[in-house]
Amino acid sequence: MKPPINNDSTNMNEFELIARLSELESAKNIEGADTVITGIGDDAAVVSTPASQMLLTTDAIVDGVHFRSADERWFDIGWKCAVSNLSDIAAMGGVPDHALVTLGVPSRASVDTFADFYDGMNAAFSEFGGSIVGGDVVSSPIMFVNIALSGHPSTDSYGEPMTMRRTEAQAGDLVCVTGPLGSSAGGLKVLFSGETNPSGKILVDRHFRPTPRIEVGNKLVEFGVRCAMDISDGLVGDLEKIAKLSGVKITIEMVNIPLATELIFMFGTSAIELALSGGEDYELAFTASKSLVDDLVANKVDLTVIGSVSSSELPSGQVDVVDENGELYEPIHKGWDHLND
Amino acid sequence: MKPPINNDSTNMNEFELIARLSELESAKNIEGADTVITGIGDDAAVVSTPASQMLLTTDAIVDGVHFRSADERWFDIGWKCAVSNLSDIAAMGGVPDHALVTLGVPSRASVDTFADFYDGMNAAFSEFGGSIVGGDVVSSPIMFVNIALSGHPSTDSYGEPMTMRRTEAQAGDLVCVTGPLGSSAGGLKVLFSGETNPSGKILVDRHFRPTPRIEVGNKLVEFGVRCAMDISDGLVGDLEKIAKLSGVKITIEMVNIPLATELIFMFGTSAIELALSGGEDYELAFTASKSLVDDLVANKVDLTVIGSVSSSELPSGQVDVVDENGELYEPIHKGWDHLND
Repeated sequence: MKPPINNDSTNMNEFELIARLSELESAKNIEGADTVITGIGDDAAVVSTPASQMLLTTDAIVDGVHFRSADERWFDIGWKCAVSNLSDIAAMGGVPDHALVTLGVPSRASVDTFADFYDGMNAAFSEFGGSIVGGDVVSSPIMFVNIALSGHPSTDSYGEPMTMRRTEAQAGDLVCVTGPLGSSAGGLKVLFSGETNPSGKILVDRHFRPTPRIEVGNKLVEFGVRCAMDISDGLVGDLEKIAKLSGVKITIEMVNIPLATELIFMFGTSAIELALSGGEDYELAFTASKSLVDDLVANKVDLTVIGSVSSSELPSGQVDVVDENGELYEPIHKGWDHLND
Repeated sequence: MKPPINNDSTNMNEFELIARLSELESAKNIEGADTVITGIGDDAAVVSTPASQMLLTTDAIVDGVHFRSADERWFDIGWKCAVSNLSDIAAMGGVPDHALVTLGVPSRASVDTFADFYDGMNAAFSEFGGSIVGGDVVSSPIMFVNIALSGHPSTDSYGEPMTMRRTEAQAGDLVCVTGPLGSSAGGLKVLFSGETNPSGKILVDRHFRPTPRIEVGNKLVEFGVRCAMDISDGLVGDLEKIAKLSGVKITIEMVNIPLATELIFMFGTSAIELALSGGEDYELAFTASKSLVDDLVANKVDLTVIGSVSSSELPSGQVDVVDENGELYEPIHKGWDHLND
C-alpha cells in the first residue's frame, strides 16, 4: 500500500504528477490514526467519531497571498497551514481529529517540494493531534492549499462537552492572552529585510513555526472559560469580533501587552504596533472573571491580563486601546494583510 | 444576524469584498440544519453527529481547469461543485451532513455572481441533503472553490451502519450502472460547438446539473451491495480503480452500456466513446451477485448490467471492453481531462 515515490518529476506530465502526489498523500496519512476505518483511496474517508458533538473548520492559503513559493520553505508552509486550522480548534477549546487536504498544483511543480510540504503538515498534526484522512489534488495555474479539519469538544469540570465561543464575553470580565504578540509579523518584516542576526532569526522562526494552543485551550475549558478566539488576523481586529458578537466594549491597556524581547530589540517603539495589528501569532485571546483568572494563574496557566470588558450600547464592536496615561491610542493598522503589511 | 448584501461591488476593495462574501455565506447557511449548534461566525462550526461513524470527502474546482468563469453560469457552477462532493457520499452509500466551503476570490469578482453561486450550492444541498456550516474566503489571483463535506453511513437490512467500498468486488459479480453515461461529456462538446438544438440543450443541462445518486446509494446498501463508486473521471478509468483495489478483472460489454437518446442523436457512433471515457456523469457503478441484482431489479432499482467481474493475477487493475462479437475494443481515451477533452 506504500508505493515508492518517484522523485524525478521532470519527465512527468500533469496527470502523472497529480497521481504521484495522491500516492504521497496516501502514503503519509496512516500513523497513529486508530479512528480511521477507511482512509485515502475510496470515494470518502470513513472515521469513527469520538463524541456526539463535532467541530468543523477550514482554512486555505494561496501562493503570493499567504505564502511565497519562491521562499521554498515547503516544510514550514505545510506546518503553518496545518497550524492555522489546528488553532481554530484550539480557540474553541477542542481536540483535533481528521483532516482533508486539497492541493492546487501548477504544472511546473515538483514532487520533492510536496514531499517536504506533507512532512511539515504531518509533523504539526503529529505534535498537536489530528491526522490526514483524505483530500483532493487538482491542477491549477497557481498553488493553493485548503485544509478542512474536524475535531471534538473537550470537557468541562463536570465531564460534559463544552466549547468556547466569541459570543460569551461578559461586562466585568478581564481580557487575557496566552503569549507574546507581534513576533510573527516581526518575523515576516525581518525576512523581507534580509536581516540575519540571532534575534531576527528567532522572529522568523516564530513566523514560520507557530504553535496552536490546543493544550491550554483544553485547560481553559476545564477551568470554566467560555469565551475565546485565536489571534490570527491581529489583536485589535480580532477582539472587535468578540466585542461585536458579545455586544460589549473591550479596553486594552497597551502597556500590558506581552512582547518578546527579540521583538523589542529588533523594532524598538514600533514593536507595540506589530503586537496590536500583526497576525498569525496563533495565541489565544479569552475573557474570564477576575476570580477565574486568579484560579488559572494559581494552576500555572500561562496568561497575561491585557484589558477588561465593559457594557456597550454600540452594536459594531468597540475596542479601545489606552496608553500608560489612560489616553486613547489609535493603532496605525487594526488588522493584518498577510504579505502586504 | 442577516446583514443586507450590498451588491454594488465596483467601489469595494478586496477586504470589503471578502467581508461581504463572508456575510453572504453566513446568511445562506441556516435553513433546515437542526444539527448545527454553532454555525458560521466562530472559529469552528459546532455540529451534532448523528452516528458513531462519519464520512469525509473534499473536492475542489479551479477556473479554467474545471469550469470557465467566462460562461457566467454561476448557479450551475455552485450546483455542480456541491454535487461532485455529494456524489462521493452517494458512492459510499452515505447520507450528507455538513459542508465547509472555501472560496478563492480574484479582486475583480462581484458579489452578484457569488450570490448566484451560493444559491446553486444551497439548492443542491437542499435537494439532496447537507448544509453549509462554515468556510473561508481568501483572495486569490484565480477563482477556486473547495468543498469539504461530512456525512454518515446509511444502514443495512439489520439496521447497522454500512458503507460500499472500492475494495469489495468479487469474482462472479455483475457490474452495473445507475443511469446513462456520456451525457455530461457530450453536453460539454455541444457547449463548445455552440450548437443550440433541443437534444444538444438537454445534454448541456446534463453537464451543468448532474444528479448525485444519494437515494439509490442508500437503497443499494440496504439491499446488500458492498462495492460501488461514482463515475466522475470516466467509466473505464474509474472501473480500473475498483479492479485494482479489489484485485479482480472487469469485463465490460460495450453494447450494454446505456446511452441517452440525445447523445446518440448528436454524436452517432462516437456516443460510445463519450460513455466509455467521459467524466462527470455522477452515476454510480457497482458490483453485486446475480441474485442480488435480480433482487434489486424486482424492487425497482434503476440499473443496467454492463459487465462482469472475474479473478485476476494482475495487480494493476485490468478492465477489458468487448464489442458485440466478443472482440477486445480499445477506447480512444480512458479518462477525463475536464475542459481539455
